[in-house]
Amino acid sequence: MTETTITATETVRNGVDTTTMFATLDAIKAQPEIAEFRFRARNQWLGGAHNRSTIKDFYAACDEDTTRTEAFTLDAGEPAILLGTDTGPNPAEYLLHALAACVTTSLVYSAAARKVKLTMVESTLEGDLNVEGAMGTNTVDFRNGFTGIRMSVRIAGDAPADKLREVVQRGTDRSVVFDSISAGVPISVDVTTV
Amino acid sequence: MTETTITATETVRNGVDTTTMFATLDAIKAQPEIAEFRFRARNQWLGGAHNRSTIKDFYAACDEDTTRTEAFTLDAGEPAILLGTDTGPNPAEYLLHALAACVTTSLVYSAAARKVKLTMVESTLEGDLNVEGAMGTNTVDFRNGFTGIRMSVRIAGDAPADKLREVVQRGTDRSVVFDSISAGVPISVDVTTV
Repeated sequence: MTETTITATETVRNGVDTTTMFATLDAIKAQPEIAEFRFRARNQWLGGAHNRSTIKDFYAACDEDTTRTEAFTLDAGEPAILLGTDTGPNPAEYLLHALAACVTTSLVYSAAARKVKLTMVESTLEGDLNVEGAMGTNTVDFRNGFTGIRMSVRIAGDAPADKLREVVQRGTDRSVVFDSISAGVPISVDVTTV
Repeated sequence: MTETTITATETVRNGVDTTTMFATLDAIKAQPEIAEFRFRARNQWLGGAHNRSTIKDFYAACDEDTTRTEAFTLDAGEPAILLGTDTGPNPAEYLLHALAACVTTSLVYSAAARKVKLTMVESTLEGDLNVEGAMGTNTVDFRNGFTGIRMSVRIAGDAPADKLREVVQRGTDRSVVFDSISAGVPISVDVTTV
């Protein structure tokens, strides 16, 4: 094995290029304003519980991103019991997916930075919701949103169990969506009638 | 136009069967325990920033749902600037989609209940994020999550502007995801090392 091969093996860990990762951290330390991001979604109602988001552009590193050539489209719906025709996962389920995806990526990056090679990360999430709040039948005893979310993570890798647990802890500690949902985010809404 | 046709037109409004909607509300008032829901997502890491959620089963009306014959799958990723290969929208973008989808469905249902016929609902969402928190380069000045989300709704229908604004207000007031994100949800995490 040549020295070049060894370097390549060490650089990409868990599918994450750690050389680029550490270069990104250095770049932010040198020029903090590049850390400002703005993410976006555009949504269109298609009838009943069916609506679709288009996701493409975002702002990062002091500029608009131009790397995405095509937009992602996401269809939402509701099952029959919530008056829809199952045109997609429902919004509450999308929220759980956002949380799962963010914690997973966050812990995978954290493991890569700590030289932990992972072989498996799986999670199951369950959110409790009493629809009396959202449906307006009892808004005194019930909130509209989830009352609680449980996340169970299964993880395997080349580190001791304690280290793997530390990686998961770091994943939740650093996750954008975990923090957004657990601590809350101010949302402003403006309306234009056409 | 026959009377039957008129009745059908009045029952389904904005693609929502209002007869079923009001029957559902009556059923909840008669038997409140059917309002308990549990939504779920299962996520699997596929390498780097690529992971995939599978969404199918949920608990509702005192039983496990059996109406969905196939699971929905959702792929998440990150753009190159966040060390991924754009295998899907990123988790923060999924969060914005969940919010857009939920407010839209909530306001469409609210309009249907209030006899407002909508012809268009569109929204654009933008979330501000400084990645210094999540990346760990400056956790003193920056939180990990979004600092704020702006949602702009464009709406058209057969009601006066004031009524349309009221419908949007009701949509945000009753939205499961709006409440979850704006007020926050407790999240518990358990870890199994394999």
